[in-house]
Amino acid sequence: MTDAAPGKVYLVGSGPGDPDLLTVKAKRLLEEADVVLHDKLPGPEIIGMIPEEKREDVGKRAGGEWTPQEYTNARLVELAEEGNTVVRLKGGDPTVFGRGGEELAHLAENGIPVEVVPGITSAIAGPEAAGIPVTHRDYTSSVSFVTGHEDPTKDESAVDWDALAATGGTLVVLMGVGKLPQYTEALREAGMDPDTPVALVERATWPDQQVATGTLDTIVSVRDEAGIEPPAITVIGEVAGERERVVEFLEGY
Amino acid sequence: MTDAAPGKVYLVGSGPGDPDLLTVKAKRLLEEADVVLHDKLPGPEIIGMIPEEKREDVGKRAGGEWTPQEYTNARLVELAEEGNTVVRLKGGDPTVFGRGGEELAHLAENGIPVEVVPGITSAIAGPEAAGIPVTHRDYTSSVSFVTGHEDPTKDESAVDWDALAATGGTLVVLMGVGKLPQYTEALREAGMDPDTPVALVERATWPDQQVATGTLDTIVSVRDEAGIEPPAITVIGEVAGERERVVEFLEGY
Repeated sequence: MTDAAPGKVYLVGSGPGDPDLLTVKAKRLLEEADVVLHDKLPGPEIIGMIPEEKREDVGKRAGGEWTPQEYTNARLVELAEEGNTVVRLKGGDPTVFGRGGEELAHLAENGIPVEVVPGITSAIAGPEAAGIPVTHRDYTSSVSFVTGHEDPTKDESAVDWDALAATGGTLVVLMGVGKLPQYTEALREAGMDPDTPVALVERATWPDQQVATGTLDTIVSVRDEAGIEPPAITVIGEVAGERERVVEFLEGY
Repeated sequence: MTDAAPGKVYLVGSGPGDPDLLTVKAKRLLEEADVVLHDKLPGPEIIGMIPEEKREDVGKRAGGEWTPQEYTNARLVELAEEGNTVVRLKGGDPTVFGRGGEELAHLAENGIPVEVVPGITSAIAGPEAAGIPVTHRDYTSSVSFVTGHEDPTKDESAVDWDALAATGGTLVVLMGVGKLPQYTEALREAGMDPDTPVALVERATWPDQQVATGTLDTIVSVRDEAGIEPPAITVIGEVAGERERVVEFLEGY
């Protein structure tokens, strides 16, 4: 550590992938930063905007291994202590399932000035790009975002699908392509109507975005027939049925 | 209706109020649009960026009455049919409790090309501006956004506070300053720990942002002592306690 005042770290959300959905602030910070630590999640178009000499990839490494979170945490502190203005660029929003909270705490504990710059989460932009409003006065007074990474059949699952079903609100599952059979089953067992509309949005706002729709009962076969793969979000609830009403005049993606 | 092809309507989110948190696309559309229909929610700084001759205020009128949603719907169709490129600017994100879904359906039903441009919701930016991550691996696998406008004591309330408490995830209540006593009581009755951290963020990302913190048990008196008023969001959950760990080094707002 040098004696000089440390630089500042910005935890910045990249949004869902379309560079037009960066915030004005995120775009400016990518230009002004000395170093940008990123993984693959922001997508090729946004990563391509960062001058190569500023980029440090802290995502998946050559051997397929992930860079440990501890390395990223330590590297952020090190770069800031050298006096750099650092952007930690994260896909979507930095604290919606992004470990931004852990990085924030680590930086503060090490006396590094830090600021969170929110990004558009695919949990909201994904449905909208498919013509699906996240909430709707006629159907729902709440929306819940949940991670689909966990196995709902494990006893120690932190996700309470019974409670989520009981909210009666829209559910948006992030990173939930692989475990789709398990959690749709869990929701049916929790008493959710098997005819509830469900939509899958793959690569929301990317040039090759794909949308597939069905019901709680049919969505697993829909996924298989459409070949939906990660990254994708799952929208479960009456709002998913709105796509059909608007898709003919929907523009954008 | 003219014979010419109709113009397009963009349902655009303004973000929480800081003009730097507009998306690149929203900023460009505000410059390029022929007409911008807005209410007061985007805040004075962003509304001030729109040339006066383009603005149409469809928010609260002189007498304190709200412009009916039907008027806004009809006006959007009318302007588009005249061939205008129209921005319907909405505070935060257009479909997170913003009636964007209703406007989207109305436009599509009238054959108007329409696109949704997501905005940063204060439900995410508000906590982050206060140093609170929306989710955190150590505490929660879900986050739910809910409207605090409804009276939780009414039988017909569409919000199931029991189910929301049972999710175990972060809860963010929008427009929930007034009914704070009712829903904190409902959550305690649902078995939520009275020591659960709670934070209120008023005017998130505005120059006069205010934050006040307490617990499920104390937050009503905290609100009264701090004089927290709408617009504000309420964050309920272990993540709200993170603010204390980071606030000394937190910058931004």
